[in-house]
Amino acid sequence: MTDIHNQKILLASRPVGKPTTSNFKITTETVAAPNDGEVLLEILYLSLDPYMRGRMSDAKSYAKPTEIGSVMEGGTVARVKTSKHPDFKEGDVVLSYSGWQSYAIAKGENLRKLDPSVAPVSTALGVLGMTGFTAYAGLLTLGKPQPGETVVVAAASGAVGSVVGQIARIKGARAVGIAGGPDKCAFVKNELGFDAVVDHHSPNFAAELAEACPDGIDVYFENVGGKVWDAVFPLLNTYARVPVCGLIAQYNQTPGELAGPDRFPATMRDILTKSLTIRGFIQTEFVAQFPEFYKQAAGWIKDGRLRYREHIVDGLEAAPEAFIGLLEGKNFGKLLVKVKDT
Amino acid sequence: MTDIHNQKILLASRPVGKPTTSNFKITTETVAAPNDGEVLLEILYLSLDPYMRGRMSDAKSYAKPTEIGSVMEGGTVARVKTSKHPDFKEGDVVLSYSGWQSYAIAKGENLRKLDPSVAPVSTALGVLGMTGFTAYAGLLTLGKPQPGETVVVAAASGAVGSVVGQIARIKGARAVGIAGGPDKCAFVKNELGFDAVVDHHSPNFAAELAEACPDGIDVYFENVGGKVWDAVFPLLNTYARVPVCGLIAQYNQTPGELAGPDRFPATMRDILTKSLTIRGFIQTEFVAQFPEFYKQAAGWIKDGRLRYREHIVDGLEAAPEAFIGLLEGKNFGKLLVKVKDT
Repeated sequence: MTDIHNQKILLASRPVGKPTTSNFKITTETVAAPNDGEVLLEILYLSLDPYMRGRMSDAKSYAKPTEIGSVMEGGTVARVKTSKHPDFKEGDVVLSYSGWQSYAIAKGENLRKLDPSVAPVSTALGVLGMTGFTAYAGLLTLGKPQPGETVVVAAASGAVGSVVGQIARIKGARAVGIAGGPDKCAFVKNELGFDAVVDHHSPNFAAELAEACPDGIDVYFENVGGKVWDAVFPLLNTYARVPVCGLIAQYNQTPGELAGPDRFPATMRDILTKSLTIRGFIQTEFVAQFPEFYKQAAGWIKDGRLRYREHIVDGLEAAPEAFIGLLEGKNFGKLLVKVKDT
Repeated sequence: MTDIHNQKILLASRPVGKPTTSNFKITTETVAAPNDGEVLLEILYLSLDPYMRGRMSDAKSYAKPTEIGSVMEGGTVARVKTSKHPDFKEGDVVLSYSGWQSYAIAKGENLRKLDPSVAPVSTALGVLGMTGFTAYAGLLTLGKPQPGETVVVAAASGAVGSVVGQIARIKGARAVGIAGGPDKCAFVKNELGFDAVVDHHSPNFAAELAEACPDGIDVYFENVGGKVWDAVFPLLNTYARVPVCGLIAQYNQTPGELAGPDRFPATMRDILTKSLTIRGFIQTEFVAQFPEFYKQAAGWIKDGRLRYREHIVDGLEAAPEAFIGLLEGKNFGKLLVKVKDT
């Protein structure tokens, strides 16, 4: 068998503030053969997600940072090229966590076989995967939307936000989306069927959000932070729930940007006087719910109640630029890198 | 019957920052006779509680502010002097919400008869009343302490904090108290039996708190805010719960004191990365649990597992000064005004 060349993208240095392409380094190496119990994977899709910004930093977090010189981490959909594991054969398509590279050796027990008849395999990284499940578990377990309540979510055209709003509607709540620019707003309202959408680029954003939520906000699914929070916070109703899933607007923040006023005391005051619940979470906490989620979400996709949009960029070498754009909201839908033509 | 003179303390003006005695006004008026269904009450004890600072302000909160010129609100224990209600007779001792005055007319349905054989009637304003119940409901329903976990509470010699720590221990958790000064600290450790206590007056307070919590903090029952929060926050474990019951350290804060740095983004970051739960509450939310609380707490008092300390000041006219001191932590135990000798 001829040598297989694996293209890999490494973390070259830790970003200060906004990442740049110089924080990444592309290299190539020859792929080793899999040992017993392992498979050689050819990566088809790489998922790009905001949490990866956290792995680039060495600030303490829920997961260890990526080491300098290591392959950037990430979820992937891959095809088995050579199998030394009894459960997998050449040609199987699997979900793996192989990172930013074109080939990988993986242990069989870390893989989940995908069924292309349920939905396109790329959805295993989005609406039927980690991002869809994040929306489902965070909204239902922590947000607990009740029929008639108002659920607000930002990045509403994105991988998580789009699912949050649609599930809110399936549960009988009113879904209000926040998105950036007329195209995304139109998509959220017309394609995803949210009850209302507000453009955070608008100079009257806060007033328009208040207008879109005449009965206040009962659930705010927090995935952005920043100025969206400032507009949402005064609208929260008594007993409102705020599952905190991400804070993309502050991932690139540096300590120098934290000038006053100190918003913390007023935040705590309202948490107290309105009996608010603010609850951070990582979807892994709820992993036992995944099978139930998968079954339901696949059904909702089939009957047209759960729609999704993918933003696919071509070629692994495009990943750094696409990831930098993701942190600025430049993507439109779940961001994926097509590493290899399927 | 000779005229009965009712001494009342009114809200004279709204404080800016720390209240002063000039924010209160003492007047006297003649008491009217009760109508059918009402009783005339002679107030025995008035409860002084931090939440009253909120009623003095017109900032939006969960309860309406007290009007200028109205009697200051508050819980009271009173004796029925004249009854026009079939369920009450002269001499009955009741819990009422009659405010800062020496006599009051009340509707029978707003009263709860007290049984002096269970515990001294003053406890209906403290360990067996609103403050004890606040501790019970907030700790058990929201804090959910598990055996072996670490529960931290500030104002640990106070009406709420003292009960939080003792119930935490009853439930098998480790109770760490924070109090101000050697006398209160000794009381918390030796009389209440907390596992550890830290003096927030210490110049090494944050380091001493960390030392007292070698396994981090699983439940922080928040009733003070301010610099105690800053010391607690870095010690919170993954999945820690923070019931927010009060923020006494910031009730006298003015907007000018909110200079940066802005602590809010770092707070949200840790809420996310540690999957924290921050949950404000007012005890009325859990009122259905009151009978169960009362039964259990009365039993714990009887068997010596739940101790309490009252700080009783004499005479209604002492209430303003005592209340101002309460906001500065000058009281030592549940603060009560003895309005009339029992």
